[in-house]
Amino acid sequence: MPAVKPEKISPLDPTAAAPFYRQIYDRFRDAIATGMLKPGDRIPSARSLTKELGLARGTIETAYSLLAAEGYIEARGQAGTVVSPELKPRTAITGPVPLPNPNVDTVSFRPDSILPFQMGLPALDAFPRKIWARLGARSVRAMQPSDMIHPPMYGLPLLRAEIARYLQVSRGLSCSPSQVFVTSGYRQTVELIGHALLKAGNRVWLEDPGYPPTREIFNRMHIEGVSVPVDGEGMVVSDAVKLAPRAHAAVVTPAHQSPLGMSLSLPRRLALLDWSARNKAWIIEDDYDGEYRYVSRPLPALKSLDRDGRVLYAGTFSKVLFPGIRLAYLVVPEGQVEQFEQVTESLSAGCPGLTQTIVTAFIGEGHFARHIQRMRKLYAERREATAAGLESVLGKYVRIDLQPGGMHLILRLRGNRSDRRLVASMREQNLYAEALTDWTTRNDGVSALLLNFTNIDSRRTAENFGRRILKLM
Amino acid sequence: MPAVKPEKISPLDPTAAAPFYRQIYDRFRDAIATGMLKPGDRIPSARSLTKELGLARGTIETAYSLLAAEGYIEARGQAGTVVSPELKPRTAITGPVPLPNPNVDTVSFRPDSILPFQMGLPALDAFPRKIWARLGARSVRAMQPSDMIHPPMYGLPLLRAEIARYLQVSRGLSCSPSQVFVTSGYRQTVELIGHALLKAGNRVWLEDPGYPPTREIFNRMHIEGVSVPVDGEGMVVSDAVKLAPRAHAAVVTPAHQSPLGMSLSLPRRLALLDWSARNKAWIIEDDYDGEYRYVSRPLPALKSLDRDGRVLYAGTFSKVLFPGIRLAYLVVPEGQVEQFEQVTESLSAGCPGLTQTIVTAFIGEGHFARHIQRMRKLYAERREATAAGLESVLGKYVRIDLQPGGMHLILRLRGNRSDRRLVASMREQNLYAEALTDWTTRNDGVSALLLNFTNIDSRRTAENFGRRILKLM
Repeated sequence: MPAVKPEKISPLDPTAAAPFYRQIYDRFRDAIATGMLKPGDRIPSARSLTKELGLARGTIETAYSLLAAEGYIEARGQAGTVVSPELKPRTAITGPVPLPNPNVDTVSFRPDSILPFQMGLPALDAFPRKIWARLGARSVRAMQPSDMIHPPMYGLPLLRAEIARYLQVSRGLSCSPSQVFVTSGYRQTVELIGHALLKAGNRVWLEDPGYPPTREIFNRMHIEGVSVPVDGEGMVVSDAVKLAPRAHAAVVTPAHQSPLGMSLSLPRRLALLDWSARNKAWIIEDDYDGEYRYVSRPLPALKSLDRDGRVLYAGTFSKVLFPGIRLAYLVVPEGQVEQFEQVTESLSAGCPGLTQTIVTAFIGEGHFARHIQRMRKLYAERREATAAGLESVLGKYVRIDLQPGGMHLILRLRGNRSDRRLVASMREQNLYAEALTDWTTRNDGVSALLLNFTNIDSRRTAENFGRRILKLM
Repeated sequence: MPAVKPEKISPLDPTAAAPFYRQIYDRFRDAIATGMLKPGDRIPSARSLTKELGLARGTIETAYSLLAAEGYIEARGQAGTVVSPELKPRTAITGPVPLPNPNVDTVSFRPDSILPFQMGLPALDAFPRKIWARLGARSVRAMQPSDMIHPPMYGLPLLRAEIARYLQVSRGLSCSPSQVFVTSGYRQTVELIGHALLKAGNRVWLEDPGYPPTREIFNRMHIEGVSVPVDGEGMVVSDAVKLAPRAHAAVVTPAHQSPLGMSLSLPRRLALLDWSARNKAWIIEDDYDGEYRYVSRPLPALKSLDRDGRVLYAGTFSKVLFPGIRLAYLVVPEGQVEQFEQVTESLSAGCPGLTQTIVTAFIGEGHFARHIQRMRKLYAERREATAAGLESVLGKYVRIDLQPGGMHLILRLRGNRSDRRLVASMREQNLYAEALTDWTTRNDGVSALLLNFTNIDSRRTAENFGRRILKLM
């Protein structure tokens, strides 16, 4: 097999941020991922590429050893270096994606690259990266020795203050900075609550359908999840009381039920608060995307009605900034601050100061509020366009629920189609979806796809993807 | 009481990285922390400061509301705004520090600012912050949408490759990038191991004295720590075998025993490996500062002798970069990679991509190796200077153990002095130390101070601090 000509390596960019070795590495990886280079293809020797590109030999070798270490290429002695004949799917960037297992683990499946309709992602193309880069560069330059020690365990004081102020204005939630605990994500938030307020053997009401990782985290802590049905007003509190009157906590998504999207009605909110006060139980309000509501103003948080100090409010920057930031927060009732301080000290070692500093500046200088407003408008458009595009192509097979808020659509499958089977076929085609069946513990025959619309830029794009889904029906 | 004159607010710096409101906030906080402003002092009204500084009223109000939110100041209506009469110690930066409780929790105590002799900190003044800032600014500018999604759960592939290469060169440890798992710190590393390989009720050999958080983390996982004595050759493996022959794991600090500093001798290493192979037990090698050895070349890692795939190698960037970075790593035996992948997926959501990217560039471009070499030289000097300075002042009361490596000195107290009591008095004086007694579960009357030397810049500085300690003897 002839070696791939070095011309395929387009000229390197000396002004690029990435060092040369990384540029070379990226190009080979991309060439392999896109199929331009195929398993078994020979690639130029390090020596010839060195000459061709006019770079130091070590630069090429670094790139090659990295590619080899990750399984993209293999040295074959005299026979030269080839693209690994048995490339594992994991290392291929846009290669075939492993099939999901028919259990809840599939919903925590995360591809290495961005797939159409991928759940949990905000509009990545619309993020103000320039502003972010400016604040980031400023923050890293301003680093002082005092920023290099262990970050404060409950979060940077300035960030806690900015979060408290933001929640007051946008979610009608009054709290002091000392009630705000910065965490590395929703998972850590739930663990913190579990360790601070619950113990093994306790029972917790969970919405069904509901976000699967919540159940998984509690399971690992030997805390039993009690599945509570959901109707048009959200969690059916009266059912929950019948199922487990003495439960120790309830997890709810009052703004937009996850994943069905309805709001928890006021009577249900009051019933829940009443139950928790009388039973000294805790309410965990998972407000993962309360900012995004398209038909009216965002609803105030359930926590804003909390007179008895029973509600723990979980917020995150994953949806309103981006998941890679790994920052979330928890607001605890004033009476629980000390307990959470103690548990935080034994459980966590704080989040990196740099990311916290950037977010602090982003909020404090007004970019955060502006960004959310812009996204609310953009998501309203993308939601309409995606729904219209998919409807026009797939209308015969699906009924689309248009929810008042959130970041995904629900495509209910007509007839007896299995959502899991369709999701599996879609993933083989590098299309992302989650099956509603994987979000529930019941076997009641609901069958629907959950499709994120925030990264679908137009009706036409939605139609194109719709046609690809159509072929799999 | 007259209001503090606005002149006390030195002119703001329009070119500084911090926005004005933060500069104002910082100045007041510093003024309060240093005692320039005392509890009850009146501060200028927002209106008058606005006029005085020629800034927008909102800027001043933001700074004041932040100071109020954190409890530094209080509005008193007609009487104006005052420094809070009952400032809590927690909010004061260099104010009195709470007394430690006589239990192991004291060693995880972390002040908000840097105290002399503070354990666990590298030389913060000698860190190449300019290079770091340049790489950081470049990394944040290079951020692409694909860097904004959830970071790869096992760590960025490039970082894993850089770590593998570094370990090969500097610690004699051969591993592939897929064996390297990036974590947010030692704590997460231990949790990961616990979840992947151990279960509740298992027993683990722990060095005594030893790093207290290890025991604490295992306790929380209901894994029992078995205290094993340490002598001049490190953990006494034969004692451990008598105490708990069927233990499931052993945690050791082979490079420099933590905190006593001796190396685990070769016969002990072999005995430990032999025990683990025969019993299918795990060895956790905590190589927290193996890079820092002053009397000879750093010893190869214990992991480099591991023929049977029983050793888990825990490294961290806290000591060789700085703790605020929140990055560490774990190398697992090849046969355990799949198990750790699964556990990582259910336990963690990855570390921020930005910090990982900066560290990748820092290692890949050679700064890391240079920095460690420079620090090895600097620490050798500071270790000598600190020991000499303290010896000259405190020689009558203490005997100083000069260890071959590490970042702290051990001052053994002569007579019957209590290390805990002395540590408590030192902390009242804003001098940091840890008591050896807090690092052991025995009651064998050892009494010594652990003092970090990396931030003591000269013999004179050590003498000055030594004189302050002398007064407390």
